[in-house]
Amino acid sequence: MPEASTSVLTGPVQVVGTGLIGTSVALACRRAGLEVLLSDLDPDHVRTASGLGAGRPAEPGDTPELVVVAVPPDHLAEAIRAALVASPDAVVTDVGSVKLAPLDALAGQPGLDRYVGSHPMAGSERSGPLAASAALFDGRPWAVTPAADARAAGVRLVEALAEVCGGVVVRMRPEEHDRAVARTSHVPHLVSALVAGTLAGASADHLALSGQGVRDVTRIAAGDPGLYSQIIGGNATAVAALLGELRDRLDLALDAVRDGDRAGLASLLAHGVAGTLAIPGKHGGPPRPMVAVVVAVPDHPGELARLFADAGDSGVNIEDVRIDHDPGRLVGLVELDVAAEHAEELLGALESRGWAAHR
Amino acid sequence: MPEASTSVLTGPVQVVGTGLIGTSVALACRRAGLEVLLSDLDPDHVRTASGLGAGRPAEPGDTPELVVVAVPPDHLAEAIRAALVASPDAVVTDVGSVKLAPLDALAGQPGLDRYVGSHPMAGSERSGPLAASAALFDGRPWAVTPAADARAAGVRLVEALAEVCGGVVVRMRPEEHDRAVARTSHVPHLVSALVAGTLAGASADHLALSGQGVRDVTRIAAGDPGLYSQIIGGNATAVAALLGELRDRLDLALDAVRDGDRAGLASLLAHGVAGTLAIPGKHGGPPRPMVAVVVAVPDHPGELARLFADAGDSGVNIEDVRIDHDPGRLVGLVELDVAAEHAEELLGALESRGWAAHR
Repeated sequence: MPEASTSVLTGPVQVVGTGLIGTSVALACRRAGLEVLLSDLDPDHVRTASGLGAGRPAEPGDTPELVVVAVPPDHLAEAIRAALVASPDAVVTDVGSVKLAPLDALAGQPGLDRYVGSHPMAGSERSGPLAASAALFDGRPWAVTPAADARAAGVRLVEALAEVCGGVVVRMRPEEHDRAVARTSHVPHLVSALVAGTLAGASADHLALSGQGVRDVTRIAAGDPGLYSQIIGGNATAVAALLGELRDRLDLALDAVRDGDRAGLASLLAHGVAGTLAIPGKHGGPPRPMVAVVVAVPDHPGELARLFADAGDSGVNIEDVRIDHDPGRLVGLVELDVAAEHAEELLGALESRGWAAHR
Repeated sequence: MPEASTSVLTGPVQVVGTGLIGTSVALACRRAGLEVLLSDLDPDHVRTASGLGAGRPAEPGDTPELVVVAVPPDHLAEAIRAALVASPDAVVTDVGSVKLAPLDALAGQPGLDRYVGSHPMAGSERSGPLAASAALFDGRPWAVTPAADARAAGVRLVEALAEVCGGVVVRMRPEEHDRAVARTSHVPHLVSALVAGTLAGASADHLALSGQGVRDVTRIAAGDPGLYSQIIGGNATAVAALLGELRDRLDLALDAVRDGDRAGLASLLAHGVAGTLAIPGKHGGPPRPMVAVVVAVPDHPGELARLFADAGDSGVNIEDVRIDHDPGRLVGLVELDVAAEHAEELLGALESRGWAAHR
């Protein structure tokens, strides 16, 4: 666990906005022994966060070393400006999902060289301080996005915050960040929602044929529309550019399907395969060939533990797990992803202990 | 396990095409004690499948009760026709992903009332007889799609095959099936490939911000382009109709993003949320509110087993599991989905045993 004494960050840290992300940052800073000051438009949120041990309510005359703005995207610029004015000696950062729009809105603001944007890649389907956790950022990428004129000391302080929170620092320019999240988050979210939209109102008979594929494609579409319309709308330039490219490729796909152009269709699908291989593998390494070993597991407590105990005894590391939601049967199908060269070993170990398993 | 003696299906069953699906059907029939006859254009495949215990090579003069055609989509009609001619007393079925195109190609074929299409919702990223398993269809939906003039006895026989294989029969008309899989499989696959395509060639710095969301959306895009171009191309009418609708909604989304129309964007996203709620829940029941409990787990063998043992001791049933692929850290984040009302119980049980966990 990082200790405050080994960090350039010594506190106090003020957190503005004690929702899920802000309170989680506050709890992580408290875990590292830092003094934390809390503020929010909603005094109930401050009381709740404070009661969870996230810090004490901020008071006039407080002099934070670092202010962390954790408010909804549409209110970022205004809250960053207020922090720069209220704490003229502090470094100010934020944890918002878009980085250029607030900077543009703040152009010319005195003290803007004390602001360094950041964006931890973590969240939850829940919101509010009660959903917060000091562990929320453990192992997650945390983008730090200084503008060209940001002070170097401020950048170091914000990177220290990311480290205190357990995040993995990824430094990039604000405009790069926004293009990156358009590609890795905003456009996938929007398209997932469009695919999910085609299921709304479909007949139950048809939806009975839903497998794991469509469930995976549409999982993130369950996110809060109000929040995601702010996030995606706040990154309009980068999202529109990429979404326009995707629409043009969708038109090509539609033409290929209508014209019976199998080669054109296969070429678009092959481009997709190349894309799946471009996503970084576990721990940032190159992707390794994985194989899914499928096991039938009775659907009651204890059976998964028995399966993982048997899998653990085999010495093969499980890289990923999926449980298939199968209609009409009280048995679950658990898919264990393992490195291809260990699949037979795992399969043999499980079958020798009576599991019905296959690759 | 279903027994042949309790089924209307008494065999022999002939399997034409001993790839992954065909050999898996053959193994499931053998498991139920049925005689199985194997044929394939590639004699090596028949030898391999036979060596796995899937049955014996078919011979001239064999009189199967049921012929199961399991060849690639583009060769279905031709292989079904050959089976109807070669086995004039047999019922003929197939396991292809599209149901209308072969029927249209066979219009006027004598004996077509002995053909009843079917489609098990199961597969693997691997292919060929060595990847086959008698357990492949356990608990999976299995569409049975008789044309209007199909004989009732044939329908009963094909439904018995699905049951012998452990599948869950979903009866529907062929045109309904094709519209259903366009919605639940083919369009999601194609759109997943288009999103994945936007990642091909992107900079590694940008892709470092990839989280679980984009990985889920693009997982199925890794499928074989040659096979999926046959599947999607073979269902062109239904796919084009739905893909055209989706393109029109994508244009609306693009307009909303460009025009800064937050309400329009939120409305499209809300439609997606409704779609995610329409997918049937586990075991076909209504969706229950689920909560993800996130646990940090050291990345070596045995730790997952310890986690599931502790989770099992809590008595809370784990409905789904995800392991997050986090860059730069030798710790995995495991998300355990549980019914919302049991989340606090599980969290407490895990924390009391020393796990760093949060909702």
